[in-house]
Order: sequence, then structure tokens, then C-alpha cells
Amino acid sequence: MAKYVYDFTEGNKDQKDLLGGKGANLAEMTNMGIPVPFGFTVTTDACKYYLKHSRVPDELGAQVSAAISKTEERTGKGFGDPANPLLLSVRSGAKFSMPGMMNTVLDIGLNDETIEGLLELTGNERFAWDSYRRLVHMFGDTVLGVPDELFEEAIDEMKAAKGSTSDLVLDAADLKRLTEIYKQIVADNTGKPFPSDPRKQLDLAINAVFDSWNTERAILYRRQERIPGDLGTAVNVQAMVFGNLGEHSYTGVAFTRDPATGARGAYGDWLEDAQGEDVVAGIRNAHPLSELEQTYKPGHDELLGIMDQLEQHYRDLCDIEFTIERGKLWMLQTRVGKRTAAAAFIMATHMGDEGLIDMDEALQRVNGAQLTQLMFPHFAAGSDRTEISRAVAASPGAAVGKIVFDSQTAADWATAGEQVILVRRETTPEDLKGMVAAQGILTTRGGKTSHAAVVARGMGKTCVCGAENLELDLVAKRLVAPDGTVFGEGDVISIDGTSGAVYSGEVPVQDSPVVQYFEGKVRHDHDPLVSAVHRILSHADEKRRLLVRANADTPEDAQRARRFGAQGIGLCRTEHMFLGERRQLVENLILSDSDEDRLAALDELRPLQKGDYLEILEAMDGLPVIVRLLDPPLHEFLPGVTELEVEAALARSQGGDLSAERAQVLDAVHRMHESNPMLGLRGVRLGLVIEGLYEMQVRALAEAAAELVQAGKQPRPEVMIPLTAAVQEFEIMQQRSRSVIDEVQAAYGVTLDVPIGTMIEVPRAALTAAEIAEQADFFSFGTNDLTQMTWAFSRDDVEGAFFGPYMEMGIFGVSPFESIDPLGVGRLVQIATDEGKAANGDLEVGVCGEHGGDPSSIHFFEGAGVDYVSCSPFRVPVARLEAGRAGAGAAGSDTR
Amino acid sequence: MAKYVYDFTEGNKDQKDLLGGKGANLAEMTNMGIPVPFGFTVTTDACKYYLKHSRVPDELGAQVSAAISKTEERTGKGFGDPANPLLLSVRSGAKFSMPGMMNTVLDIGLNDETIEGLLELTGNERFAWDSYRRLVHMFGDTVLGVPDELFEEAIDEMKAAKGSTSDLVLDAADLKRLTEIYKQIVADNTGKPFPSDPRKQLDLAINAVFDSWNTERAILYRRQERIPGDLGTAVNVQAMVFGNLGEHSYTGVAFTRDPATGARGAYGDWLEDAQGEDVVAGIRNAHPLSELEQTYKPGHDELLGIMDQLEQHYRDLCDIEFTIERGKLWMLQTRVGKRTAAAAFIMATHMGDEGLIDMDEALQRVNGAQLTQLMFPHFAAGSDRTEISRAVAASPGAAVGKIVFDSQTAADWATAGEQVILVRRETTPEDLKGMVAAQGILTTRGGKTSHAAVVARGMGKTCVCGAENLELDLVAKRLVAPDGTVFGEGDVISIDGTSGAVYSGEVPVQDSPVVQYFEGKVRHDHDPLVSAVHRILSHADEKRRLLVRANADTPEDAQRARRFGAQGIGLCRTEHMFLGERRQLVENLILSDSDEDRLAALDELRPLQKGDYLEILEAMDGLPVIVRLLDPPLHEFLPGVTELEVEAALARSQGGDLSAERAQVLDAVHRMHESNPMLGLRGVRLGLVIEGLYEMQVRALAEAAAELVQAGKQPRPEVMIPLTAAVQEFEIMQQRSRSVIDEVQAAYGVTLDVPIGTMIEVPRAALTAAEIAEQADFFSFGTNDLTQMTWAFSRDDVEGAFFGPYMEMGIFGVSPFESIDPLGVGRLVQIATDEGKAANGDLEVGVCGEHGGDPSSIHFFEGAGVDYVSCSPFRVPVARLEAGRAGAGAAGSDTR
Repeated sequence: MAKYVYDFTEGNKDQKDLLGGKGANLAEMTNMGIPVPFGFTVTTDACKYYLKHSRVPDELGAQVSAAISKTEERTGKGFGDPANPLLLSVRSGAKFSMPGMMNTVLDIGLNDETIEGLLELTGNERFAWDSYRRLVHMFGDTVLGVPDELFEEAIDEMKAAKGSTSDLVLDAADLKRLTEIYKQIVADNTGKPFPSDPRKQLDLAINAVFDSWNTERAILYRRQERIPGDLGTAVNVQAMVFGNLGEHSYTGVAFTRDPATGARGAYGDWLEDAQGEDVVAGIRNAHPLSELEQTYKPGHDELLGIMDQLEQHYRDLCDIEFTIERGKLWMLQTRVGKRTAAAAFIMATHMGDEGLIDMDEALQRVNGAQLTQLMFPHFAAGSDRTEISRAVAASPGAAVGKIVFDSQTAADWATAGEQVILVRRETTPEDLKGMVAAQGILTTRGGKTSHAAVVARGMGKTCVCGAENLELDLVAKRLVAPDGTVFGEGDVISIDGTSGAVYSGEVPVQDSPVVQYFEGKVRHDHDPLVSAVHRILSHADEKRRLLVRANADTPEDAQRARRFGAQGIGLCRTEHMFLGERRQLVENLILSDSDEDRLAALDELRPLQKGDYLEILEAMDGLPVIVRLLDPPLHEFLPGVTELEVEAALARSQGGDLSAERAQVLDAVHRMHESNPMLGLRGVRLGLVIEGLYEMQVRALAEAAAELVQAGKQPRPEVMIPLTAAVQEFEIMQQRSRSVIDEVQAAYGVTLDVPIGTMIEVPRAALTAAEIAEQADFFSFGTNDLTQMTWAFSRDDVEGAFFGPYMEMGIFGVSPFESIDPLGVGRLVQIATDEGKAANGDLEVGVCGEHGGDPSSIHFFEGAGVDYVSCSPFRVPVARLEAGRAGAGAAGSDTR
Repeated sequence: MAKYVYDFTEGNKDQKDLLGGKGANLAEMTNMGIPVPFGFTVTTDACKYYLKHSRVPDELGAQVSAAISKTEERTGKGFGDPANPLLLSVRSGAKFSMPGMMNTVLDIGLNDETIEGLLELTGNERFAWDSYRRLVHMFGDTVLGVPDELFEEAIDEMKAAKGSTSDLVLDAADLKRLTEIYKQIVADNTGKPFPSDPRKQLDLAINAVFDSWNTERAILYRRQERIPGDLGTAVNVQAMVFGNLGEHSYTGVAFTRDPATGARGAYGDWLEDAQGEDVVAGIRNAHPLSELEQTYKPGHDELLGIMDQLEQHYRDLCDIEFTIERGKLWMLQTRVGKRTAAAAFIMATHMGDEGLIDMDEALQRVNGAQLTQLMFPHFAAGSDRTEISRAVAASPGAAVGKIVFDSQTAADWATAGEQVILVRRETTPEDLKGMVAAQGILTTRGGKTSHAAVVARGMGKTCVCGAENLELDLVAKRLVAPDGTVFGEGDVISIDGTSGAVYSGEVPVQDSPVVQYFEGKVRHDHDPLVSAVHRILSHADEKRRLLVRANADTPEDAQRARRFGAQGIGLCRTEHMFLGERRQLVENLILSDSDEDRLAALDELRPLQKGDYLEILEAMDGLPVIVRLLDPPLHEFLPGVTELEVEAALARSQGGDLSAERAQVLDAVHRMHESNPMLGLRGVRLGLVIEGLYEMQVRALAEAAAELVQAGKQPRPEVMIPLTAAVQEFEIMQQRSRSVIDEVQAAYGVTLDVPIGTMIEVPRAALTAAEIAEQADFFSFGTNDLTQMTWAFSRDDVEGAFFGPYMEMGIFGVSPFESIDPLGVGRLVQIATDEGKAANGDLEVGVCGEHGGDPSSIHFFEGAGVDYVSCSPFRVPVARLEAGRAGAGAAGSDTR
């Protein structure tokens, strides 16, 4: 016979699949000999059966009955016994905690008979009636689906009649009357009286928990978080204990260490004569844990002993709930506790030093998201500040600047050297220019999935959203704080994208000490946090198999990347080298209408390119520098068609025309116009069609390397060909590049070892990786473009246009540009890595898309067998950490 | 010991891999007892060895010697024997015939000694010296790499000295002197005397054939045709026979049936006292085969007997070369002969009737490319016409129209109802508008891979390219023919894209009788061709597993498709239903800024959509009609940004501004602008984000179906969701559609069975097909978009911009938009079909991209296990034919 009910004595903490997180931990504590109110868990299997068959398994009734009997036996009370009633709590408990699922129903077992027993037993009339009315409310709302506001209205009315808004004005008689009113509400809304049979109450509550697995919000959450829909939830049924039964009755929550700072020593809050929800709700001021010693030493000592026992047992920070009922301590819950980023690092090293865990485990106790958080600048602690709003923390960081209300002004002021904060009701794609120009973005509407939030996170730009308490008048250009302060264009504000706070005026920004350590500005033992980061990162470096390189286009970036620990440059883009003063040369190249003109234009560009490469190779001396040949379509270097056509129309309207030169440009712009430039004449296609272009770049690179070799340096240039879709493209370009390198070697009389590889950023390249690998020295996944092609998403267009709604609909929980999509893009990465390496045992495989710096993506890449990741210099430490964690065998980066 | 040399008696026709096509057929004839000049084949294995090690295998020398001895024995001559010299021909012979490979060296074995024997033996001085000078020329050019023009100049000089341009003026003494001059040219250019040792001549010639495997042109051809680079070529060495040795010496080429018409009976040409190349070169007028009977009956009768034997043996049209040397018939070559499209159909049925082959084999003897050719209109036979040019046949068909010299005029005149031919030097992407508007395109520059050619083929538009003999003056707007005739704008010309001919004036165009048969305008026994097509297509229908449906958006197209044999509509696009008069309604939809406005706009569109669907469902009553919900980005329905900005700038320059309405449109255009619309807000994304849009379409379709059910019809609508990338998108849209259908069913009181499926056109959909298949009723591969995404090719941009150069560089031999790319796009199709069907056994899988009508793609789809293809109505017969061939087991559609 299938077993659907587990007594707490029967389970353990590793049975989260079957018993849910809460149930598994209750069982664990029970078996450790820790006082846990008696009870049992109905398994997730029962839930799965229920969801499949729309009824509970036949065996369940009897098994629940047996478990109730055991609980009655242990408590000495009877479920439904008017003389000595056993009251039960019913709580959901899935493997992962999940918003939207039914939470708790307390006091199951109360009815018009058993209330008498409770009155008798507790001698506390107000408590008893309060319990009863709470049951009817909670049960009516969550189990029977009666609208919550009906109950709220009823109690508000009663309080209003007494001229107050506090529950405390209601006495036992009021609460008794309220219970009757509530029962009437239930009867009116369900067509049936409130169920008085305790067993019926219990069964209905269990089924309601099962049903709540499939609420809309729970389904949405699972869709976003990619939690399988068929796990089901367990149900925990437990004897009620009360912290509000007078003398020596307390209730509280506590942590075994300080979850904010990581400092050693227990930490928590408690209230006397109260219920758990009162502590959480903050109705009264709670006392710090230390004061419990004076108040009730036996309870305090026992609690601290148990907490110590739990921390030793779980080998981690524990977060607990307890109740002392008339002097008797009960532990209601424990779980591994959440903590701040700094606390995570500090605790991990502390626990390592204490011998509680080893360094491998310490490494698993932190993650890249936490390290990222520690690297953002923040507002200096203790500095004066006036908070005018606290809204949605949409994209982290600290930004200070002058208020501007439109994108054009943002762009103009930024060009003039001002730091600005763009303030909008909400943003649209038209605001992109302003968002790029601004230090930070503040909106008065929208949440974490609004356009502003999604785009700002993509840009790594500080953003606070949905500051609804601020009144925005875009026409008058003013923002009004709740206290009436008016901010106009040019007034300074400060926004904290990590907390969601908005401050008036300039709040001093402090660099992260962790970044200062990376920069070599403070020592590794500067403070406990830096020291912890240093130790854990050093261990990560020992453990990781993945190399970490940086994406860097300038000598400055290259140097910074090296300081941050990059082992070379995985992506040096050459696009920016064609901008600025050189734009004219590029225009000459584009407008050239003969081979000679084209080659002349290229000849002018070559020494400039060579200079660029010299500096970067020197900054990275001894380490590989992978140079990607020019990628974007050439028309990106020309003015826009609309700009030129307007110019032409205006000139014509005055009887004139465009100058010959501008007319030539307009002609080129028309000729080269592309409907979808991302899928047009770019990457290797440019190299193949515009003869001499890639050859010029390869020659400049080889010459730079040759000069450095002559100077006794160790340059390690590599040539990367972008956008390969077919092996033939690569073959031709590789041959042409080899010829150029051979010529340079001969001319300089040096030997150059220049690997030639390709981006894998077009689905076809991944699908034909074996063929390409036979020719190429390395692959580098351009996961940005690969994501664009694989999903048919133009990043420029889609993030703002529908990523918000898509996240709300649960189509994805995280943007595929942020974290690699394992089923689609990841599958291509896996295919290309496997088949590429099988075809060419010497093939080096890396990643240079932004995913190279994303924690969960790095774990994916470790699993896929790639050799290195390359990311922006700032993400290098995060990549080192996560690569170390992945190398040491973490299952994933999240600590769900 | 490896065997590298096969005597002709040792091989057979199935050994093409080892012996090459020519060698295998020579061996086959030898073993049939047919007189073939004695000789042997050096295998492709020897070639592979040579290419790998840069030298021939050690064993080869001795094996060649043994084979020469055997040939000497059989011919009674000696290789290098001055008394009775054996002369040899050396011919390359790969598995596939390949342009760019060395063809032939004749008369190997001649030198200053053996020439005496030849003189003696033949008594023909001119013949002997002519043979010698030909050897030095051919050998010098093809084996030693001496520039051909040096030889040509020398002979031209000598002829000029005699005041003629004909070879015939040169007598024996001249040719002897020419031989000396040629030898001097060789010595001067190679630094060595012309090799006189016969064996050395032979070895060098064999190696030269091996080397020619890797000439640039051969590599390019293989790259284009996807022929593996490691097959190697065989070399055929054969005793020379001469058709130019006086009495009863003849040479000729013949076919066992007429390759032009398919008519029964041998067909060929011959010359007396001539060599094979003279027949091909057409120096003298050749005689029809029948006349040989009068001239030399024994030879004629033996030849016809052998040809009959060959046709019976090969069971197909044979193409042969023969030589009669002094009364003795020798067969020099046979192969399965090429034939016209009409001949292919007629011969196949004839041979079926004769019992030579069965109908399954008849089906394999024709292909879709031939059927396509038969379906194009052509210029009426016998009609008067003046040809002014014969240039590159770039895209088939017959087009007549008025000359226009620019795209704008083409568009304007076409709008005014004129038929025009666009004449350009070459086309650029700016000419697209004009190309769309024109009946045909004529260019004076460029070949089959020029922009005009590539784009016209893509459009199915008649095109002739590279008419260099026509003088084009775009400024003066005139086209001048070689005879001085001047054509101006508006003058009529006719162009034949199948032959490359350009005619002045209007040549009457005749519809294809095959199309008239499909249209039901002539009977199936109208003429031999129609009858053959009818019989073969009927057999194809019996044999095919693949269903054939049509892509049709209008009732007219649907009806035509049905007449052409379509078994339903595989793709009914709804885009055009939003154009024309309805554009305003779409603009209202786009500009709506409240839910009410949007729903109101949709409500206005719904009855119109319903009307569209009613007509199509009625036309296809009883057959499935797959309706694709709206796919393109909505901004495509708005005016262009440049147009509006110019309007605004002009208005402002006159102190005014845009009207409020136009300003609102401009605003929307800016807001909705996309950098890469193909990868933007389109397809299912529209459906998800613009609530009510897809629901409106589904409701209109369901209502149309419901009305037809009420009227006793059998509508079979299916809903297809475009651009799905993630199963979640499909799930949501499917649920919303089901609700709408349920509502309509309830409202009309009918039961509708409406399958809901998705396009698979985004790589990710193919990669996650299993998940999607669990939800979907059918898949339809949109191979156009799938090709665009998989290759990162925007078709609008790339075909003109670089497909020409790409084909020239051999990156591909055929556009991946024309024929499916099996390694990339095809792999995704295979993955999705396999994994989709594994996840859902009832899943129907089809193809609705243009590849659905492409012969070689259809074979791929048959192999991949898809259930149906859908193509344009005109391609339906082709698809039926190829699906039948594929079903009956043809390996591929080409007859290479």
C-alpha cells in the first residue's frame, strides 16, 4: 500500500522531494530530539495523485486518521474533543517556496463545541474567540474562496463603531460576535454553513493546499523560474502551540548569526504573549534575543543550545521560529537562512576558520550575483540624506545627477559634460538615446519588468522604477515629493538602484572596497569583507578549469582586465577603431569606386590600426589577444538616410540641391541600405566582398606583433573571423590571412604563431561545427548574436518592445540575453563544442558573448566542456568565482 | 599489391567510383563484345595516392608497363616502335564530369622517330605531320602549361603568310615546319626540349590529369556542386584509331533516339575522312546518320546493331562516338545521353510501352526541373522574329513589353497597366521596385550570378543578362542593336529567358500545352507530350507518400491550386487581407491608444476577414485550409519614416507643421521603428502583445467555418501560429484560440474540429520541437525564414548584395533559398521532425516555405519523414512529380 503520510519521526532533511522543504526540516529536528509540536506530513505524491485524478487517493483518509490518533496520543488531547481539544495548523510546503501558493490555516478543529474546551483550558476568553474568528476568516478566505475583503469590512465596521482602527479595542464579546458574523458571511457566499466537523475542516484544508499548486500566480512563477509543473506540494499538519497564553508565553524568530553583517552570535527578535504573525507584522516593538535571558532564562538557554545544535548540524546559518507556551519551548520551523552578500562572504570564511566547513564548501556558499552586488558603488554610509521615495529597485548601482525630463535634453547635457538622471513616467524605445546618456533612470510607473527596468539592466545602468509617490508633470517639467518639495530641470537627485531609494540632492558615492582591492588600491586584508573575497577568490582560481579572459577594445580596458585577473583578451572588437577622426577614412573607403581608391583608403587606415594593436598587445604581453576582424555593416559608418533626405528636400525647396559630396553620400546610403542590417552584409561577408579590408587588418596586426617580437616582447595575437556560416567562408578568409601573415614574417624576418579561428554566432556554424573545426584553430561563441538568431530576436528591438510582457506572461523568467537559454542556444553550444572537439582534438573553444560573465551561464559552459569564457573587465572577478564554483562542482549558481 | 590499372576487360559500368564514368562505360562495352580500341584505365585510387603523396604509387609504373604490353600485343603495334608505332590517347574520367579538368591528349607516342613509321604506315604525310603538331600543341598546353596563345599565334602567322585563315591552306611541309616551331616554343617556355620518349610522354600526361583534379576551376566547381574533393579522377589510356585515314574512314556522334523530340530511331551526324573533333567543331557539314547506309553499308549496319544492343543493355537513350578506320568500326565512348525536357517525358513513356523499362523507372527518367521548363510560356514556334541578341539565359520564360530604362518609370507604367521590360546595364537593390513591376529584365552586363539574374530567378521573373552586343545609353534612353536599329523608351521587345534570345517587336507568346492540360483546357491526350506528362504524373500520384498542398491567399489561387492537384492549402497568408482599402482600418488599430479603440478597430476588421475565409474555405471544401495568423510587423502597414520626415521638414520650412493626423502617424512610425524588423515584433509576438488581434482572426475563421457547416459544407480550417520560438508562446496562444473557437461553437450550435499548429521557422523552435509537439497538432516548416535565421541572411538584403560573388567563390553552388541547405537548415528540419514525432505520434509535419516546390528539397523532405509539402499553385505539379519520384525511391532529382 502506498504511503502518503509521514509522521515527523519518519522523515529527514534530504527528503524535500517527498515532504517539501518545511516538512523535511520539521522531521529532521524531530529526529534530532528537538521539541517540535507533534504532527505529520502529507506527501507530494498524494498531491500529484490528487491533481491527476481530482480526488485524493483511497488510502489517504485512513492514513491521516492514524496520524491524528498518534498526535492525539502524544499531546494527550483529542481532535474535536470538546473537553480537551487538539487544534491543528495546516501549512503548505513545496520543494521550493513559491509565492501564490496557499500558506497557512491555523486553529483547525475549533467549532462551537470545542471552543468551550479551549475556553476552559486556557481560561482566556478573548484568546479563544480571537482564535475562532481567525479560523473562520482564514478558512473562509483560503479554503472556501470567500473574498477576503468581506471579512475585512466586517471587522473594520466593528472597530469603527468603537471609534478606533486597532484590533485591541475588540473584547471577547466583540470577537464572539465577529465569529458569528464571519460564519454568516461564509454561509451567504458558499451556500453552506461553515463546516463544524474538525475532520472535514482538515480534509478541506489539505485539498485546498493541493489546489493552490495550480493557482495562476503559482503557475506563472513556475513558468518563469522553470520549476517543473508536476512536483506537487506537501502538506504539514501540526498540533497548535500558543505563545499568547499568558505567563512565560513568548514567540520569536532568530538567526544563528547576524544575516546582515555575517558577525558571529545568535540574533533575533521576540515578543511576550504573542503569536508568530505578530512578530512578523511588527505590531509591537520586538525585543532583541539577548533580553530573553533576563526575562526567561531557562527558555533562552534551551533555545540557544538548540540553535547551536542546528548550526552544527546544518553546517550553515539557520533561520528559526520558536514559541514558548507557558514555559515550554517549541521549535516551529528551521531552514538555512538568507543573508546579505557581504555576510555570505564573511560567514563562509568564518565557518571555514571554525572548521565547520572546508574551503570547497565555503566557495559554494557564495555566488557571482553576490560578488556583483559588492562591486557596485554605493552611497557612503552615514552621509546625510533625505529620502523622497522608496520604489522598485530595478537595476543596481548608485547614481547622482541633474534631473532632465526628456531624452534630447539628457543627450545634450551629457554631451556638455553634465551628469544627468532621466526622469520619465515610463520609458519607450524613443528614450533609448536618453537612457544611454544618463547616469541613471527614474520612472514613476512600472515595475521590474517595465521597459525602463529591462533596458537599464541590459545596459548595466542604475534604475529605480514605479516611484508612484512622486508627482510628475512633464509639461511643467517638475517632480513633486510627498512633502511638497518641488524639483525642476537641473535640480540634483540621487537614486539607489540596489534599494530603490530616491534622495534629494547629492549623496556622496563610495567606490566598493572590493573593487579598490581588485584595482590594487587597498590591501587584501583591508577589512573582513575584502579579506573574505580575497580568500574565496584565490580558492576559486585554484579550483577552476575554465580560463577567464576579457572583452576589451582599448589598452586601458586591457590593463584593467589584467588587474582584475583576466588571462588574456577573448574579444578585441575593432569597430571603435573606425570611429572618431577616422570616420572620414572609412567614408573614403565606402565611397571608393575603383580598386585603387579602395586600396588607397585602406592604406591610410593600416598604420592607425597597427598603432591600436601595438598598444593592446603590449598591455597583454605574454597573454593571448583575440582580435575580431571588422563586423558591423559599413553603412553604420554613414549618416542616416532620413537626415540626408530631409537635408536634400530642404535644399530643393529653396531651389538648390545637395552638395556633390553629400549627394554622393546619399547615393551610397541608398545603395547600401539594408532592411535587416543584422542579417546583411557584415562580418566575414564584408571581408570576402570588400577585398583588402580584412587583409589590411591582419597585416596591421601581424606587423604590430612582428615589431614587438623584434623588441624582445612576447605578443600573442590571434585572428578571429566573425559571422561564419559556412566552412567555405572560413577557408577562403583563412587562406588569405595566412598569406598576409607569411608576407609579414618574411618582411620582418620573425616567426609569428597566429592562430586563426572563428566566432560561432550563426546557428548554421554551430550545426556544421565539425566541418569548420577541421579548418579552425579555435571557436568563440558569440552568444549575443547566437541568441538573436536562434530566437529571431533583434536585441535593439525586442527588449523594450515585449520582454516586459513576456516576463509577465511567464514566457521566460530571465532574459535570454542575460542568462543563456539552455534548451535552444545552449543546445547549439553543446552540439558545436562536442562535434568541433571530436573533429579537431586541438580545437580551443570559448565564449565571448555577454553570457561569459553571467553566473548561471558559466555553470552551463563548464558543463558543456568549453575551455574559456571572456567577459567585460568588470565581470572578470565574477567569472573567476563562478568558474571556480563550477569547477568545484556546484550544481548551479542560485541558492534557491 | 594494390591494383591501380584495370584493363578494359576487367571493369564494368557500375565501377564509376574506381574507374570514372568514361572508363566504366568503355569496360562495359568491351565486355559486351563491342569493338572498343584496346586500352586500360588508371584508377582513381592512383590519383588519390598521387594527390596525397605528390608522387604516384611505386607499383604504378610496372602495372602501366604490363597494360601497355597487352595493348601492344592486341594491336600488333609497338609503343615507340618506329616501324609500327602504337599511338595512345589519354583522357581524364572522373565519377562526375567536371569542367576545368584536363580533357584529352591525343597521339601520345609520336616523336621524330615514330613519325616515320606513321608516314610509312598511313602513306599520308599531311595526316602524320598534322598529328605530330597537334600532339606538341596539346601536350605543351595541357601537360606542360605553355600558354595556348603562343601556339595559336604561330599557326595564325603561318596561315596569314599564305593569305588565309583556314588550316586547310597548310600542306605537309608547313605542318612539319609548324611542328618544329611548336617544339621550339615548348623548349623556350619550359627550358627543356619537348619530351621525345613515348613512355615519358605518357607518364607526364597521366600525372597532368591527376594534377588537373585540383585546378582552381575544378575546385570551384566541386565547391559549388558539393562534390567531395577527395574522389580523384581516373585516366583512360587507349590505342588511337583514325577516321581520317582515307577510304572507308569515318567518324561521328549519334544517339539511339532523337534527343530533341524523343522520337524513336537512331539519330546522328558523321563525316568522312575526319577526326572526332571535326564533327563537334562543325568545320564541314556533317551528314545525317541515314546517309551512311548508302556510303558504307557494312559499317552502318554494324553501328546500328551496336546502338540497338547498347540501348537494350543500358535501357536508356545512349549517346555514342564512333570511328571507322579503313572499314573497321570502333566505338570510342558511350554514355546515357542528355535530352530535352519534352524528349525526356516522351522517351520515358515510349520505353515503358516498349517494355524496356517499367513505369517506376519511367518516373525516374524525368524530373521536376524538366516539368517546370515545360510549364513556362514560350514564343510561338514559326512566328516571325528578328533576333537582336543572344545572351545569357538567366531566368526562364518569355516576356514581351515596352522598354523602360529606370525603375521608377517601370513602376509608373506598370501601375498604368502597361507591360514593360526593364533594361539596365546591371541592376542594384535600388532596382527591385522596377524588377517587381516589369514583365522581364534585360541587362547588358553580368552573367548567371549577377544581381539581376539571382534576384530574377528568386522572383520567377524572365531575365536575359549580359547582352553585350547591345549598346546602352541610359542618359539618352536608347538601346542600339548591332545592325544600328535604335530602340527608345516605349519601343517593344521580346526576351526569351530560356534561350537568352532578345527579339525586336512583339513575338506572340504561347501558353504551355502542359499548363493548358492542368487548367483543363485541353484533354490528357492532346498531344504526345501532354499524354506523356499525364501518364507519368498519374503514376507519380500513385507512388508518392508526401501529400502536396498549395500556398494560396485568395479564392482564385485556391481554385487554381485545386485544378493543379493540390490536396489542400498548406499556407494561407492573411497579410494581404490587411492591405488596400483596409489599410485605414489597420492604421486605426495601430494608432488606437485605449483598449476600447483597439477592440473597435478589430471589430471593423472581423467581418471583412470572415468574408475572406468564407470564400477560401468554400473553394477548398472538404480539404484542409491552414490559415496563418498575421505575421509581419504592424509598422509595415504605415508610411516610411523618411517620407514623413521630409514632409514635416518641408512643412516647417514654410512656417507650418504636419497635420495633427500625420503627426500622429509620424509619432507611431518613430515609436514602432525597428532596426531589424524581421527579428522584431511580429508573428506570435504580435498576437501575444496586441490582445484581441489573433483572437479576431480566429473568431472570423471559426465563424466562417460555422456558417459553412450550417450550409451543409465540409470546411476544414486549421489555425497556424507563426514565429513560435518557445513552447510557452504557443501554449498561451493556443489556449486563447481554443476559447474563441469554443465560444463560436456554442453560438452557432455546431461542432468544429480546428487543429492548431505552429510554423517552425525559428531555429529555437526546431531545437525545442519535442516540447512544442506535446502541445501542437501540426508543424509547418517555414523554410524561408528558417533559412534566413539559420544562415543569418536577410533575403531582402543579401541576395543582391553578395550572392553573386558567393556563388563565384564557390561558397555555395545554389542559393539556399532556392534549394534547402541540408547540413544547416536541413539538419534542423530533421531534428524537429524526429523529435516532434517522437513526442507526439499524431503530429502532422509539413513544409510551407518555397522549398516545398523545389525538386531536390522535396527529396530531402521525403527522406526526413515529413508528411506534406506546400508550394505555390504553379509548382504543385512539379511537387507531385518529385514527391512521386522520391516515394518510388529516386536518390536525387538531378541526372548528373
